Amino acid sequence: MAEIDTQASLQDVALIVGGGPGISSSCARLFAKEGMRVAIAARNPDKPVLHTLEKTFGVRRYACDASDPASVELLFRNVADELGVPTLVVHNIDGRVPGIFRKGLDDVEPGMAFDTIRNSAFSAFLVGQQAARRMRENKPNANGAKGTIIFTNASAALKGFPLSSAFAMACHAKAGLAQSMARELMPEGIHVANVPIDAAIGWTQEDGTRAHRLAGTSVDDNLADPDHIAQTYLQLHRQHRSTWAFEIVLRPWVEKW
Amino acid sequence: MAEIDTQASLQDVALIVGGGPGISSSCARLFAKEGMRVAIAARNPDKPVLHTLEKTFGVRRYACDASDPASVELLFRNVADELGVPTLVVHNIDGRVPGIFRKGLDDVEPGMAFDTIRNSAFSAFLVGQQAARRMRENKPNANGAKGTIIFTNASAALKGFPLSSAFAMACHAKAGLAQSMARELMPEGIHVANVPIDAAIGWTQEDGTRAHRLAGTSVDDNLADPDHIAQTYLQLHRQHRSTWAFEIVLRPWVEKW
Amino acid sequence: MAEIDTQASLQDVALIVGGGPGISSSCARLFAKEGMRVAIAARNPDKPVLHTLEKTFGVRRYACDASDPASVELLFRNVADELGVPTLVVHNIDGRVPGIFRKGLDDVEPGMAFDTIRNSAFSAFLVGQQAARRMRENKPNANGAKGTIIFTNASAALKGFPLSSAFAMACHAKAGLAQSMARELMPEGIHVANVPIDAAIGWTQEDGTRAHRLAGTSVDDNLADPDHIAQTYLQLHRQHRSTWAFEIVLRPWVEKW
Amino acid sequence: MAEIDTQASLQDVALIVGGGPGISSSCARLFAKEGMRVAIAARNPDKPVLHTLEKTFGVRRYACDASDPASVELLFRNVADELGVPTLVVHNIDGRVPGIFRKGLDDVEPGMAFDTIRNSAFSAFLVGQQAARRMRENKPNANGAKGTIIFTNASAALKGFPLSSAFAMACHAKAGLAQSMARELMPEGIHVANVPIDAAIGWTQEDGTRAHRLAGTSVDDNLADPDHIAQTYLQLHRQHRSTWAFEIVLRPWVEKW
Repeated sequence: MAEIDTQASLQDVALIVGGGPGISSSCARLFAKEGMRVAIAARNPDKPVLHTLEKTFGVRRYACDASDPASVELLFRNVADELGVPTLVVHNIDGRVPGIFRKGLDDVEPGMAFDTIRNSAFSAFLVGQQAARRMRENKPNANGAKGTIIFTNASAALKGFPLSSAFAMACHAKAGLAQSMARELMPEGIHVANVPIDAAIGWTQEDGTRAHRLAGTSVDDNLADPDHIAQTYLQLHRQHRSTWAFEIVLRPWVEKW
Repeated sequence: MAEIDTQASLQDVALIVGGGPGISSSCARLFAKEGMRVAIAARNPDKPVLHTLEKTFGVRRYACDASDPASVELLFRNVADELGVPTLVVHNIDGRVPGIFRKGLDDVEPGMAFDTIRNSAFSAFLVGQQAARRMRENKPNANGAKGTIIFTNASAALKGFPLSSAFAMACHAKAGLAQSMARELMPEGIHVANVPIDAAIGWTQEDGTRAHRLAGTSVDDNLADPDHIAQTYLQLHRQHRSTWAFEIVLRPWVEKW
Repeated sequence: MAEIDTQASLQDVALIVGGGPGISSSCARLFAKEGMRVAIAARNPDKPVLHTLEKTFGVRRYACDASDPASVELLFRNVADELGVPTLVVHNIDGRVPGIFRKGLDDVEPGMAFDTIRNSAFSAFLVGQQAARRMRENKPNANGAKGTIIFTNASAALKGFPLSSAFAMACHAKAGLAQSMARELMPEGIHVANVPIDAAIGWTQEDGTRAHRLAGTSVDDNLADPDHIAQTYLQLHRQHRSTWAFEIVLRPWVEKW
Repeated sequence: MAEIDTQASLQDVALIVGGGPGISSSCARLFAKEGMRVAIAARNPDKPVLHTLEKTFGVRRYACDASDPASVELLFRNVADELGVPTLVVHNIDGRVPGIFRKGLDDVEPGMAFDTIRNSAFSAFLVGQQAARRMRENKPNANGAKGTIIFTNASAALKGFPLSSAFAMACHAKAGLAQSMARELMPEGIHVANVPIDAAIGWTQEDGTRAHRLAGTSVDDNLADPDHIAQTYLQLHRQHRSTWAFEIVLRPWVEKW
């Protein structure tokens, strides 16, 4: 569209924290196609999907434990040194530990709840803090922005579902963090957004079949397509600061809410 | 961007209800540039700003009292006959009657409150109903949508401010309508969105100076630029149905909220 | 409980607008038992249920069309003259016109939508305005309050359900009004509250059987008991102004939300 | 009031987790006066204020680190053994670590954010889990309830304020937990409530002067009085299950919101 500033895009450095085959990969591909230098960080940067992103789109892979302050600080230093200071940071970590899905309150071991919060909300704090610290030094781009920080979230941020106590805590915490950051950082020219995805996520795999996160859900467009989610992230990044959106809930047309 | 279906755009018919020099005009210009056939409806379709849109962008002008059921029905019939069934309808009517702005509860004459609700919320109902009735007959486009209905709203939809009783009612009513319509129509392939603008609105006039709605506010990008609002409306219209947003609050970077 | 100021109770004048056998009757009985002088207003004040309230509890009956400004003004004048200026006003009008329940957007005649808004939200405006105008002249009671204005609302105020467009508008409008009034009037010592009942309502009839509003729902405590709703209204009225609640959503323990 | 079941009160066992001189002490006093057996838990149970509660009202003191799973489990076992299984549990821990108040995102050390979440939200999870586990075995009382779990919260649960990132996370997390628990436990007969106090809190000290939490705020009823907060908690505990409130925001009449 006319409003896209190609110069700005070429100078954009995107850092995606969380390295799965869904939203993170879709973002990496789209941002690279749009001319950004793209970094992706994961606990295990050797996953085949990340190697593919590197080979095909030049995406740079980083190892990071996003719930460890030193690891996150190092990540941002390395990205800044090697690609430049990020102008677009996506925190895309779900954080639920194995076995916690649809577990009743009584059956959640405290350690599982604790780890879910740390993986999700505390890592969001660490990534958000480093991103803000770095972006503050950027010059505003053509849209008046020094940078964009996007938190992927879930419907559990909007509503505390039963059998979801730990995830409700984590998602609500992330939403509260995002809101506080938005009020604090937007007047400094840093765009902060919270994007709850109210859906299971599904996508087309390399072999042409559709993959999706939840077993047993039908594979149709009643699953949120991560390529379309990435489009919304790009639009958020390119919004002019005279009309910034803080929160966009994305859901498939047939979703009940 | 890649996802834009030019064919779809060429077949798009946009109807904007409300004919001021701000958001309505920005939408009309952008939609026309994108290849849509554009209709604009106003109580007085002879305003110079509408004639300019007609001359420069081929926008078709219609007279309509949006709070009158027969007038709204006639509008949709005429637009369908002359341009085609709308695929994008924007309800962009503020509806506040003269003198109601910042009036204490005690000073609002009941008739003023009544007219504010009728102008704003009831007209939204009439326009939304006609739009849904017509769009239902459309074939889905490349994004799986039969059409998009967008309600411009205000921060009074999110928060009932003091000295704003009638407007709080009207904006909340419009938001409630939009939500009900979204839940009812999205599964039929009609995208419904509520867009509260949490800001005063300002724009560049033909003579190069900036205009804005509220006297005494400084003319800077602390005012929402209607050209950027129109961009968000276009993005909403082009979202794939696998990831529809229902509500986007737009506010300038420096707005307190 | 200790904090109840019997003197204050004896001077309390309660006006309930809306005269059905559910919440209105429960409020009338409870308020009378607590020593208040009680007025109840209805379009038809000759309903047997109101005569019973008069005979048993000394409740005064008034005829009022709550969507007519002159009628509401007259009501408040008469109540003030005959019982004293109200210190507690309850707006308890649902407002849905016959035939609108669970009607799809396409099937709602505009006049039905219009009347629903007028019956519910506009009447709330009229009653709220008169209540505030009168209460402003009261002296603060032991809790620091000049009066309490309570709006009964529905879950449609919290969520725009499908097949409920007109009611969603009306309930949202009432909620917006209540919020605006609360922000405007609380600092003047008038307590304003919005109480959405997220349930069907059921009660024990004089013959010992249970009545409920919705046919087909089972008669158990999955229906909100209006006697318990009235208790919450009384508690709201007696809250000290150092800790006023604006909104309380009441729902039965088994309700899905 | 008439609906109070004295028998039920005499059998009530209240456990207050968090032992300050404000809400916790007010609750302890009120609950004891109403005939409940009362336990209060604090990291340091030797504070003079707790000894006074013991001497004057027979309140039992317990040492507990509420962010430690084993400590919380032991607390509930001891209370159950010594006073009986709790029927009313109040989690009243703010959790902010020293020095975090009004600190900008950049100045919050990660460890401070982490501890704030652990002190507040994680301890709420631990207390809520133990409370639910124990209450499940209770018989329903006259109001149909097996027990009540109340989380004291702050306005940071409703809105992420600037300069409040860690507290926004913690309070949002607590709200999400409470919601999830409410949806899960209410149908089992356990009443869960989230009570954000949108105010600074102030009270009368033993020497007759007023104390308050924030230095520099005027001591008047623009501070929430914890004795009135305790009243609301008692009312929540005594609500019949046909009309349970999940969330009540309490704010002084003059508070801006």
